[in-house]
Formats: sequence, C-alpha cells, structure tokens
Amino acid sequence: MSTRRRVTIATIAEEAGVSIPTVSKVINGRPEVAPETRRKVERLLHKHGYQRRVSSDDTPAGLVDLVFAEIESPWAMEIVRGAETAAHDAGSSVVISVLHTHAGPGRDWLERLAARRTDGVVIVASKLSGDVQAQLTARSLPFVVVDPEGEPAPGVVSVGATNWHGGLAATRHLLELGHRRIAMISGPADMLCSQARIDGYRAALETAGVAVDPALIRRGTFLVDSGHDEGHALLELPDAPTAIFAGSDLQAFGVFEAARQRGLRVPVDLSVVGFDDLPLARSAWPPLTTVRQPLQEMAALATRTVLGMGRGEAPEMRRVELATELIVRESTAAPRP
Amino acid sequence: MSTRRRVTIATIAEEAGVSIPTVSKVINGRPEVAPETRRKVERLLHKHGYQRRVSSDDTPAGLVDLVFAEIESPWAMEIVRGAETAAHDAGSSVVISVLHTHAGPGRDWLERLAARRTDGVVIVASKLSGDVQAQLTARSLPFVVVDPEGEPAPGVVSVGATNWHGGLAATRHLLELGHRRIAMISGPADMLCSQARIDGYRAALETAGVAVDPALIRRGTFLVDSGHDEGHALLELPDAPTAIFAGSDLQAFGVFEAARQRGLRVPVDLSVVGFDDLPLARSAWPPLTTVRQPLQEMAALATRTVLGMGRGEAPEMRRVELATELIVRESTAAPRP
Repeated sequence: MSTRRRVTIATIAEEAGVSIPTVSKVINGRPEVAPETRRKVERLLHKHGYQRRVSSDDTPAGLVDLVFAEIESPWAMEIVRGAETAAHDAGSSVVISVLHTHAGPGRDWLERLAARRTDGVVIVASKLSGDVQAQLTARSLPFVVVDPEGEPAPGVVSVGATNWHGGLAATRHLLELGHRRIAMISGPADMLCSQARIDGYRAALETAGVAVDPALIRRGTFLVDSGHDEGHALLELPDAPTAIFAGSDLQAFGVFEAARQRGLRVPVDLSVVGFDDLPLARSAWPPLTTVRQPLQEMAALATRTVLGMGRGEAPEMRRVELATELIVRESTAAPRP
Repeated sequence: MSTRRRVTIATIAEEAGVSIPTVSKVINGRPEVAPETRRKVERLLHKHGYQRRVSSDDTPAGLVDLVFAEIESPWAMEIVRGAETAAHDAGSSVVISVLHTHAGPGRDWLERLAARRTDGVVIVASKLSGDVQAQLTARSLPFVVVDPEGEPAPGVVSVGATNWHGGLAATRHLLELGHRRIAMISGPADMLCSQARIDGYRAALETAGVAVDPALIRRGTFLVDSGHDEGHALLELPDAPTAIFAGSDLQAFGVFEAARQRGLRVPVDLSVVGFDDLPLARSAWPPLTTVRQPLQEMAALATRTVLGMGRGEAPEMRRVELATELIVRESTAAPRP
C-alpha cells in the first residue's frame, strides 16, 4: 500500500491536455492510447512522482517478465530455469521476451508490455535506459536487473555474482600451477561483469608480481566462436600464453577448438579456465576447470525480489552479488617445463 | 467465428445446478470458481460441444503458453527461441511453464492457467491426458503438441520431425562406412519420436541384411548422464559395437565420455552419431556427426499454428513432420579393419 500520492490523475490529465480516462489507461497499461500521448502522460507521471494506489482487490497478474538481449547460449537456459522455479513457487509464470539487440528494452517492448498485465520485470544482461526506467516507474512496475550492462542508475535493484573474486580465483589458480604468461578473454566491454573479471585477473597478477601484458587481454562475445577466434589470435602471438582464462564456458570450448586446430593438447600444452559452470562444463573434454556462478540462484533471487516489490515490500539490498566458486577439473595443469 | 453453438450457457448452468455467471466464469477462465464446480461445468461444456462465440471485440491476450516437462537440456532453449521468434513476429509473448514431471499438464497447471488470459498453448514433449484436452477445449483454448508423448488423440494438432527418416539416415551412414555392430541408445519408451528413430534404425539394418540384435538397443533419457551410462553398458558387452547411434546430441556427448574413460578414441575405435544438431554439436570434440532436426522451426510452426487457431483459422494439417537431415562431421569413420 503506497502512501505517496501527491498528485491526482486529474492534475496529470489537465497538465497533459488529455482526459482523465486517458491517464487511467496509461497507468493501467491499456493499449488504446496513442504512443505520443502515452509518452507525454508517462513523463508527467514520472515528473510528479505519481504512484498508483495499490487497492486490496488488485489481484496479481500471475506473470513475471524475463527480458533477454539474446538467448543463444545455454547460459540463458539456466537463468530461465531459476526464474521459472521461483515464479512457480510463488504461483506465477514467466513471460520471456528476447530483444534481439544489446541496446536494451525500447519503445516496441514497452508498447507490447502495456497491452497486458505483469507483476514485474527482470531484465537480464541488458542496458536499461533512463527513459525506460522512468516509464516502468510511472506504471508502478517493479524491476530488477540481473548482470547489468554498465553501472545501474542509483536506486536500481540488481543481482549479479562476485565476478571480481571469480577473476581473481581463476588467475590465482593458474599462477599457483606455475603459469606466468596468462591470457584473458573477456566479454563485451560495456558489461559490468566483464570489467570486474578483468580487474580480478589484474589484481591476481599484480599481487603475484607478474606484469600485466595488454596484448594478453582480449574481448569478445560470450559465445563459442568468439573463444575460437580470440584463442587463435592469442596462440599465434610470438610469446604465446601457456594458459587462457576465458570469459565463459562457451568461450573456453572455442579455445579448446582453436588449441586442437593448432595441435596443442589441453592441459598439457595449454591450460584453460572457463566461467559459468554450465551443465556441459563437466562433460567437456577435458572436463573444464571453471568459475561457477550460481545462475539459477541469481535469477531466482531477482524473481523473488521483483515479486516482493510488487507486493509493496522493499528489497533488502540495492545490489546483491552471489558468490562465485572455482571448480578445478582437468583442463588446467602446470606449464611444460 | 464459430458456427457450432448448439447449447447455451443457460442449459449448461441448469444441468450443472449452478448460476449462469458461474458458467461464464469457467468459460472465461476466471479463478474464483471452486475446483469441483469448475470440473463439473467443464465436463458438461465438453459433453455438449459448447464453443465460445468469438466476438469481434475479443482482443487477444498477447500471450502464448509454452509448456515443458523439463528444461534441463539446451534442446529446450532451441524450442524457446523458435517459439519466441514466432510469437514476437505476431506481436505476442511466450509464457514458459515447466511441469517438472513427465505425467503431462495436470490440475495444478490448469488452475494457474485459468487465473489469467492466454491465446493458446503449445505443449512440448509431454503427455496430454484426455481430461486436460477436454478442459482446454471447453475453455476454447487452442493447443498444439510438439513431439507428443505417445500417439496423440484424434483431432489433436501436432508438430514433429521426420524421426523415422533420421534413424534410417544415421544407421545407413554407419552401414556405408562398413559398420555391422551398430548400437542404438534411444529416448524414453513412451516418446513417439524415440520409437520412430528405433524403427528407422531397424529398417536400415534389415534393408542391409544385418540382423537386429536386441542387446544393442538401449533406452535412456535424452541427457548426458544417460549416454554415459548406456554407453558404458554397450561398450562392456563381449561383442561390443563399433558404432553407437545416440538418441540426442547430449547422449552422444555422454558416449564420448564413456569411450574416453575406456581408452577408446572417437572415431578411430568407435563411431558416434547424435540427434538434434544443437549449436554445441559443431564445437564438440570431435565435431559431432548428427541428425539435424529443425527445432526452432518446429516450435515456430506450432506457435504460428496455435495463434492462427485462436483467430479461428483451421490448421492446415493435423500432423506435420519437418524434415531431418544427416550432418556428417568428424565423429564417424570406417571401423578398424
């Protein structure tokens, strides 16, 4: 139950130059409002900090929206599994939207969302523009971001993993095995998690007194092809690395492929560490040493949080990072003497 | 627009001994009806062949339900991708439900579904009881089954792949390489697709004059562990196979694992064929020879069909099978002389 209702619908209607029912339609997410009008009303709702009164007969929609930029990787499946389990436990179902762009949810997505009810939105590994954020807020729609792209705006609730620690643990493991030429392939530069992993990698090297060589840090997408291409690029360096820390398990599989194509055996000639611990990491050949991030738990926490916010509960924390854990399998070994 | 409206809501209400609004609530999927009453009304609606009049102001819900038994495998992700793309193109979104049981959708799922709107249901690789079917029909909810478990009831629209042809093509490929001891690991016995693949395998062997050895046919789930366990069981036979045709790519990865644990090289000592052609098949080591089934297209077709049925369009066919295709990569070779 919100107590913050400084402005009435009538005020908004007057200021926007539209009827009261039109403002109601925008607030209730009804489709039959012209986009331009909707935008104007939303801007005013946001400006005045209007919050819909949550009346006692406001039954939940029974739906949580889960929004992906892409769902090409089995990574996304782990997120879906976690969100679906948490939603199911709360008597809800999960609606999947794929934006097919890394620019974040936009107008098109908002218009679709306005055409039906939802109890909240979990945005996965995507940008979140101030504009979209303002509109979700204007519609009193709670949202949580999983693995935000870029630093989320103040007040935005987000869930991630301890990526910096994961980067540190993976690199420290390789250092302890005796590696000194350790390369890293990270994800897109604008993903917060990518940057945190690189910083963990740097921190481990610096603590061990090993100079960071910028030639050994590469970036790609989190998919197999990227690991393959960046793996080749690293392995053809004059002073090639003896170990590669990949930004995802799929990238690590791509590095496996590049190594084989060059006649290198993993881990005898090259050590490889992944990130994620997808179910397939265990049955890869060799079984992949990787940094486990609890993807299902991250998605479940985000879903439970957004459902709680929808019931008027304040989230416990603005930013939660769940622990990563190094899982040592058979893709890492001491470098050849 | 349906022309079949032999019975009125009033008749149903009288026969059920309930009020007219109660019958309306059942038809419109409102939650506030006691389960027992709902069941009674649904039974009568089905018995009388009642069909809701589709009025012109019946706006679509903008949601298609996609129902899985489990979503453990990247296989499910391909289905989600196909369904999401087709739904998106139609201005809809996909709701994911995971039943966590192979018994098919039940009461619990129906009750949840009744609490909100949906334009149709795509049921994936699950049982569909006559009871649930009757209730979906009573609620005028179109549904399509992808990869049905068991033979679907008459009138049920389903989408699959040419599994028999896939089994035939995979086995013929192994025969042409010179293999004679060819084993097969299939999926669960009650999946129609599993049976069709086994029959294709048998047909290829029989056509080539190779006796079918029941000891070489095993069944499991479609997951990695099952391929691993059944692979070991086959490879420890006194007269072990020189080739294994697995029921899924994940099973094939499990067979890879079992082979390595026994010191066998793929394909030198053992040829392996998968089924599905998941994105990971290409980057497996060795790259996996497999039968491609167009999972995304199957899911997209099912989704488009169910949305069309919701608009009153009759499906073009009751049962559609999309073509499978053998993709030869590096996990198959001639047996050692």
